[in-house]
Amino acid sequence: MLELKDYISERFDLSDEVKKFTESISCIRNLKKGNKLITQNQLVDKTYFVLDGCLRSFVYDINGKEHTLQFALKDHWISDYIAIFSNEKSTQEVECIADSVVLEFSIEDGIESIFLSYPEIESLHRKNLERVIVSLQKRVLNQLQMSSIERYNLFLKQHKDIEKYALNYHIASYLGITQQSLSRIRAENFKKSDFLT
Amino acid sequence: MLELKDYISERFDLSDEVKKFTESISCIRNLKKGNKLITQNQLVDKTYFVLDGCLRSFVYDINGKEHTLQFALKDHWISDYIAIFSNEKSTQEVECIADSVVLEFSIEDGIESIFLSYPEIESLHRKNLERVIVSLQKRVLNQLQMSSIERYNLFLKQHKDIEKYALNYHIASYLGITQQSLSRIRAENFKKSDFLT
Repeated sequence: MLELKDYISERFDLSDEVKKFTESISCIRNLKKGNKLITQNQLVDKTYFVLDGCLRSFVYDINGKEHTLQFALKDHWISDYIAIFSNEKSTQEVECIADSVVLEFSIEDGIESIFLSYPEIESLHRKNLERVIVSLQKRVLNQLQMSSIERYNLFLKQHKDIEKYALNYHIASYLGITQQSLSRIRAENFKKSDFLT
Repeated sequence: MLELKDYISERFDLSDEVKKFTESISCIRNLKKGNKLITQNQLVDKTYFVLDGCLRSFVYDINGKEHTLQFALKDHWISDYIAIFSNEKSTQEVECIADSVVLEFSIEDGIESIFLSYPEIESLHRKNLERVIVSLQKRVLNQLQMSSIERYNLFLKQHKDIEKYALNYHIASYLGITQQSLSRIRAENFKKSDFLT
């Protein structure tokens, strides 16, 4: 069975010194479907890297309705980054929507102090932020210019096997459509695929 | 009149060595309304910091319709960051929607080589990326949960004096609403303000 240090070595290209530090602030957590890692209005001092399963971050609106910001599948990061980067309490919740295994990283001393001590981690983090910005800008642009059926099909491509884990309202609230629209889109897709076979 | 080095010293907290380097890759540009700094399908090797005026980035969809990704007012950065961070040609255009003054930074040698030589710039850039992610995540969440009138009013708060510069279709295509909806929202706002006075 793989140990913490194996997971870290496999996934992140780090010098020996930084690898040791990274191990010292992380642990493997085996989680059950339904477990919540972050709830609203808490201090956020942890960030999660998914090894297996699926997590979801979402907010509640004033009517208590949920809106999904992100699904994190294997090899993706998740936390409440608005809280971490703004140094504020959480507005998002992060929950497991399947039994999952994550690497949990504690950033209790603040990310700034980690970057000061280990510039190598700042570089990795910066590259990751750039990828996140590309993905968020594309999501904003797609929301502006694509039809809901185009966005749904792109979403499925970008989130392999997501339909094994996510409930209808998770996906609908990520795409910004009603559950009825989602059902209609699925039915249309089914008809098309049926026609093609 | 302020010179390049004054603008840089005023706005960025840099060591003398990095200040000198930053000056060496930048210049002040006085631009006219309508000037395009980036067009589709070009190599993007410049990034712009607005000193005065207003710039806009947008894409064309397959029907030639424009969709606004960003407005950059004073003290904001703009470029095609999807192109820069993905090392691809531009998909966006960047244009001046008012006479503007910008600091233009050349990143012809690639941003990676700048960060390798000047880790201080990587830190500044990383902090900026974190702010951009907070703002983009909030925009995605607002798009999911707010009404168009709420989004319009928030947009005005976040973009001081934008209505001096932006045309109706710029704003409508940023908010993802039609120009007719924008006119209706403005009329409703006007009625409310009239009622309150």
